[in-house]
Amino acid sequence: MLQSKLIATTKKEWPSEATIKSHGLLLKGGYIKQMASGMYTLMPLARRVTKKIEKIIREEMDLLGAQEILMPLVATRKLWEMADRYSSIGSELLRFKDRTDADMVLSMTHEEATVFSLLNEASSYQKYPFSVYQIQTKFRDEARPRAGLIRAREFTMKDAYSFHTDSKSLDKEYDKFYEAYNKIFRRVGIPEVIAVASDTGMMGGSGAHEYMLLCDAGEDKIVICDECNYSANMEVAYTSKYDIASDNIEELKKINTPGIKTIESLHQFTNIPISKMGKAVIYTRLDTNEIVIVFIRADREVNETKLRNLLKIDDEKLIPRKEEKSDNIAYGFVGPKDLNQKAIVVYDKSLENEESLVFGANEIDYHYTGLNIKRDVGEVEFVDVAKVTDEDYCPECLKKSLKIEKGIEVANIFKLSDKYTKQMNMTYLDENGKSKNPIMGCYGIGVGRLMASVVEKKSTENKINWPASIAPFDIHICPIDYTKNEDVKKETDMLYNTLTKRKYDVLLDDRNKSAGVKFKDADLIGAPIRVVISPRNLSEGVFEVKISNEDNESLVNKDELLNYIQEKFTLLLKEVE
Amino acid sequence: MLQSKLIATTKKEWPSEATIKSHGLLLKGGYIKQMASGMYTLMPLARRVTKKIEKIIREEMDLLGAQEILMPLVATRKLWEMADRYSSIGSELLRFKDRTDADMVLSMTHEEATVFSLLNEASSYQKYPFSVYQIQTKFRDEARPRAGLIRAREFTMKDAYSFHTDSKSLDKEYDKFYEAYNKIFRRVGIPEVIAVASDTGMMGGSGAHEYMLLCDAGEDKIVICDECNYSANMEVAYTSKYDIASDNIEELKKINTPGIKTIESLHQFTNIPISKMGKAVIYTRLDTNEIVIVFIRADREVNETKLRNLLKIDDEKLIPRKEEKSDNIAYGFVGPKDLNQKAIVVYDKSLENEESLVFGANEIDYHYTGLNIKRDVGEVEFVDVAKVTDEDYCPECLKKSLKIEKGIEVANIFKLSDKYTKQMNMTYLDENGKSKNPIMGCYGIGVGRLMASVVEKKSTENKINWPASIAPFDIHICPIDYTKNEDVKKETDMLYNTLTKRKYDVLLDDRNKSAGVKFKDADLIGAPIRVVISPRNLSEGVFEVKISNEDNESLVNKDELLNYIQEKFTLLLKEVE
Repeated sequence: MLQSKLIATTKKEWPSEATIKSHGLLLKGGYIKQMASGMYTLMPLARRVTKKIEKIIREEMDLLGAQEILMPLVATRKLWEMADRYSSIGSELLRFKDRTDADMVLSMTHEEATVFSLLNEASSYQKYPFSVYQIQTKFRDEARPRAGLIRAREFTMKDAYSFHTDSKSLDKEYDKFYEAYNKIFRRVGIPEVIAVASDTGMMGGSGAHEYMLLCDAGEDKIVICDECNYSANMEVAYTSKYDIASDNIEELKKINTPGIKTIESLHQFTNIPISKMGKAVIYTRLDTNEIVIVFIRADREVNETKLRNLLKIDDEKLIPRKEEKSDNIAYGFVGPKDLNQKAIVVYDKSLENEESLVFGANEIDYHYTGLNIKRDVGEVEFVDVAKVTDEDYCPECLKKSLKIEKGIEVANIFKLSDKYTKQMNMTYLDENGKSKNPIMGCYGIGVGRLMASVVEKKSTENKINWPASIAPFDIHICPIDYTKNEDVKKETDMLYNTLTKRKYDVLLDDRNKSAGVKFKDADLIGAPIRVVISPRNLSEGVFEVKISNEDNESLVNKDELLNYIQEKFTLLLKEVE
Repeated sequence: MLQSKLIATTKKEWPSEATIKSHGLLLKGGYIKQMASGMYTLMPLARRVTKKIEKIIREEMDLLGAQEILMPLVATRKLWEMADRYSSIGSELLRFKDRTDADMVLSMTHEEATVFSLLNEASSYQKYPFSVYQIQTKFRDEARPRAGLIRAREFTMKDAYSFHTDSKSLDKEYDKFYEAYNKIFRRVGIPEVIAVASDTGMMGGSGAHEYMLLCDAGEDKIVICDECNYSANMEVAYTSKYDIASDNIEELKKINTPGIKTIESLHQFTNIPISKMGKAVIYTRLDTNEIVIVFIRADREVNETKLRNLLKIDDEKLIPRKEEKSDNIAYGFVGPKDLNQKAIVVYDKSLENEESLVFGANEIDYHYTGLNIKRDVGEVEFVDVAKVTDEDYCPECLKKSLKIEKGIEVANIFKLSDKYTKQMNMTYLDENGKSKNPIMGCYGIGVGRLMASVVEKKSTENKINWPASIAPFDIHICPIDYTKNEDVKKETDMLYNTLTKRKYDVLLDDRNKSAGVKFKDADLIGAPIRVVISPRNLSEGVFEVKISNEDNESLVNKDELLNYIQEKFTLLLKEVE
């Protein structure tokens, strides 16, 4: 197409609201236009990219035999109550009333809708396994939408759901999706994406992976072992072994620690290493109004996702406790011995083998030293609610080889078991005529976020390098003096027509602009092949061609140009096969 | 694909909730699943059809040079206030609050969003004309969702918007879209769709057409002239001439009509033809609380769309008046002479040339006869607010050749002028550097409604005949005894593989079901080519082939089968070129 007609006005300045590269480049290049907080119009360049991404996703889903459907975005409260999520999900589920005063939601995911759609569609075991998918709009009322398409409120997602009669079949299909997702990331040009074990969160179920693109703009923390294959989201990462800090058995002693309420000041005051101390982290669980006290080694942090999973409560239901007058708690001096407050008490594994700890004595201005939990408190159960650090042992190879990286979650897959089918009464008859609930898997991938992730990985601050598979245009022809020099115009038009006939997506910069302006804009459009036609080169019968994966441009003779382009484009496509 | 895996459970009975053919067939065939009032999941068969429809629409839009974008469904109140539609549109615009308590809407159309997205994209006259489009979800909170996909609340729509510097350019583009739409209807198999002049309604602007599929299930009334090309939605249809009923000039006489409050009883009482009487139709306009009295010939009905347009008020703001004590109105005896109630008084054109009418005398139990409006009331303006009937003159050829048909509105196009660009301050600099507002056209077509319309037109009560361009499958192979007869299985599998390799969309009924069940299901799937493989025919080396546009099935020799299918399929595709 002609660039004079393309709706894609570039900005000269870096957009001030952009904190990460993809957000800034997509705004600067005229790919997206913000309509409201967390809501964007995909302008023509972006829509070209997402259509290509959607095509790749469709091809991979169809290869798996998944059947495409389309479910509504708006759903009833009744539907969301069927699996008890209407009340359990927080305000990211947008609730509203329609004109008849009926309670409705904007769907952020479609497990309930899928099961409801399929209720009478698979009543015999012979129909299983099968899967369905859709590429459709979702709405998630994020508390803090940010980073452009990385965390938007309205977005396009491919979500697939598989149905099975046994877990072996689910495992098999899950593995197929696992591989199909890897293929999708290869094909859109970010093979760097890795799958990590993840939390099942509000989805429930027995296992989950997230696909993470490791990069500084990521909001997730990923624990990765350098020595083995272990990788997991920080939310679920664990270590199986702690170095013991206090293995001398000491006597229990109560010491006076006037006004010493923090670990750091206690360390200053006593000169005892922090790793030999324990601390109490205190929460309120809002659903039952109970107090939760976590005892953990003082050099560790509580992993609140693990804690919530342990307590089986949702996101917004667990908050740090604010001191209340009625509490029977000596804030700043809390420990496991002599604790008189009724509470849910959790002991982290980091304390399990420690022999002599410093801990609060549950009395203002006093701590214990030499506290041995088994001896001084009694038998307790130790559970893992700690955040892993990069000094921990890998739980699989047991080496101190963990590192922590940032990542963008570009997709996720879950084994859901029968949570939804059971509550919604989806059944089939097995070989013996017995009624059973199928089990499910679900598989999500965000289209816009995937596009932004590619930009995040494939760009410099002024230039997007689109992989050939999803670039808005395959070839960008940038003639110099197109509107002034007749030879340039003639050769350019001929090349444009020939390449267009050969089914390339070609953009021709027919604007009356300087070479500098044209090249800056071309950098933002990021076609994998750029052909520059200048009066000087043309007089020598050559064209300047820049291939995105090569460092330098080449001068190519006119009669070799078409073959050259074809050959290079084939190579570019090979990279993303 | 294998039918045993296809998610499309057919129902044996006609769905009781279905009042029209397309609704019933799409439910019965497992194409759609109702999720809530006016909301449906498109199951695999329906999604296959809508994907093909979307592809055709995209191709035609791309041919026009329209650039695809994607705008959010959710929009802010602020955006909808920019062109004053937030308050002027009734409760079909779904309003709600997000988690920050901000007022939001679910978009039912995207004029404001398009202009906002493009605000800084076309600041020079050189960029014009251009157009953008999207294929996207809309939500319209219908008071009475009905007829399945014909009037749904959530639906997929292609909406395009064109931008121009002058009306000549808009007219030209409008004509192009007009033709492209005709081509789309040809290509999806319903060339019967006609374009009729229509009301601009809440869109504003200077002209509009609706595309109507004439059929009994339609909810719109279309006025069509048998003699010339005139056609219009009843909402805007008009006649330019009335036969005069009362051309004798009589004297004004007040007559006693005790308790005679209706036209019919007045006719009985006086024996005067109804066409010689006038009547008053009384409304309240809710925005100003004024009374509106329409005087119209008694054999005519008020066209409320015309009346609302005359008064420049929206749908829900004009309601029939309920008698109120404070009214100075002799209900049942209202007429133009001696009217003492302050009101907006409208005289319909049907009264313009009448000489002697019967009319209420604004006094309980009295009417006038021989009322001559000019003589007895004075000079008044007559405007057209009457519904056209099939006994009226065609306004173009002036023959009594009008008929009224029912139609489904499958698309609409509007000339919008600068209503939105002006209010939202979208500007460009013209050749002389002067800032101006572009003018717009907008062009909508409902994807799901289009699918349902095809079913409405192309089906019998038990069978859908999909046009080859949009059928969920091209070829349906129905083997008899597939699971029992090895020869049948072998030949069937071979044919299935060959046809699949040749890129046909093939469905193979591999189920262990009777021929009767298979054929009934096949009728609902409606592939344009059906191949039946039976043990008996196979033993004679022939296959039974049924082509959708032929009355009878043919027996085709094995070695001719592939050519036969190819030839027939080519012919089927030709029908929808």
